[in-house]
Amino acid sequence: MTTSADRIWKAGLVVIGDEILSGRTHDRNIAQIASWLQVQGIRLAEVRVVSDDMDAIADAVNALRTKFDYLFTTGGIGPTHDDITVDAVAKALGVEVVIHPEARAILADYYKDKDGGLNDARLRMARVPAGADLIPNHMSGAPGIRHGNVYLMAGVPSITAQMLDSLTGTLEGGAPLLSETVGGWIKESEVADLLREVEKAHEKCQIGSYPFFREGKVGANFVIRSTSRDSLDSCVDTLCEGLGELGFDWTPGGI
Amino acid sequence: MTTSADRIWKAGLVVIGDEILSGRTHDRNIAQIASWLQVQGIRLAEVRVVSDDMDAIADAVNALRTKFDYLFTTGGIGPTHDDITVDAVAKALGVEVVIHPEARAILADYYKDKDGGLNDARLRMARVPAGADLIPNHMSGAPGIRHGNVYLMAGVPSITAQMLDSLTGTLEGGAPLLSETVGGWIKESEVADLLREVEKAHEKCQIGSYPFFREGKVGANFVIRSTSRDSLDSCVDTLCEGLGELGFDWTPGGI
Repeated sequence: MTTSADRIWKAGLVVIGDEILSGRTHDRNIAQIASWLQVQGIRLAEVRVVSDDMDAIADAVNALRTKFDYLFTTGGIGPTHDDITVDAVAKALGVEVVIHPEARAILADYYKDKDGGLNDARLRMARVPAGADLIPNHMSGAPGIRHGNVYLMAGVPSITAQMLDSLTGTLEGGAPLLSETVGGWIKESEVADLLREVEKAHEKCQIGSYPFFREGKVGANFVIRSTSRDSLDSCVDTLCEGLGELGFDWTPGGI
Repeated sequence: MTTSADRIWKAGLVVIGDEILSGRTHDRNIAQIASWLQVQGIRLAEVRVVSDDMDAIADAVNALRTKFDYLFTTGGIGPTHDDITVDAVAKALGVEVVIHPEARAILADYYKDKDGGLNDARLRMARVPAGADLIPNHMSGAPGIRHGNVYLMAGVPSITAQMLDSLTGTLEGGAPLLSETVGGWIKESEVADLLREVEKAHEKCQIGSYPFFREGKVGANFVIRSTSRDSLDSCVDTLCEGLGELGFDWTPGGI
């Protein structure tokens, strides 16, 4: 029987931005949102990076908001002509775009002493899909937006960090996924059998093997994940014992 | 009329890896592959990051290989139990998994003087979807795999870089997308009208606005993209003139 404690809560993420797809900007929001979700007891299950295109955004939003418990988007909620996320999400949800009165008040206050005041471009940042709530942003005034299970965040990682802070503890999640890492100057191809056997003997755990090349040498980190602390500890112990029997040195926490 | 020179070649990318979705590892392959594709005259049109799960990988591969001219994957082609990309892609393509004789020979040679030789785990890296060719990897022996328009690359960015080198110039593409960047300590909300008007006046160009916060100050880079050098230059000139008229300093190449 699946109890609510066993339920795995999942989220999707749509990263909006030609700047990521052109290779010009390295995305930093995937890792940031993934780490934050882990702490909320929610797993990031899929990410789609799409271009600044209405249909591409709307299709990705509809695919992932129906597939998972939560959907986040990053990017495209600023004041310029290429910021079309609100329109695309409204289209996906089948609702109108409206000016949110509280967002307008926040922006009017934020810009009251600044050059140009609340001009038309800045007022664009008060537009939301009808029925939406705001996500506070203490950094730059312009709020994030929540509509049902859809959360629209900024593209600038430091602003998204602020919005995530505002949301901390407000989303329902399950047991957090715990993880431990063990690593060494070990060729993963020499311990592949061990990894498979240890994972098989601990059904509540997954073991990931992440090889790397550093200082001209081959190594690997092994990440063990589970929602059960007991299973996790037992799995880590068995793995480390096995590595030792094969003659390998390993370092807790990975290298 | 669309001539072949006007045709826009597009690629999709499936990033395979629980380590990206957990937030533990920051992806570096999206930007690397995007930049490489640009030079080949191919645009990265969509990325999906999926977990180490057969169905999730197969579904994403099938969605993107039919939607775009090319599909790349990264990750999951190593020797351990969690490397299931070959099996998932074979499932997506409806073909068997076979040992590629040339891959076996490459691995046998690479491991002949190494501890353990060509063991079962290492031989896994000679498995390919039936009908596939190899993509040379001069770094670690284990080759990448091509099957029709599907290209399977490593998860380790330095190995993927080697595989991309091997592929340079072998994929058909169109006119490369050219870009110029202009940036300054400019609030994008003060130049939103200008950006929209300049883009509208140059139909072969797109202008992206990328704000940032640095040293406690707000700034933005404006990236102008086009496949036409003349249109691009004209658009950049018009934009810079407009920024000057509004009293803003700007720096070619962005800040």
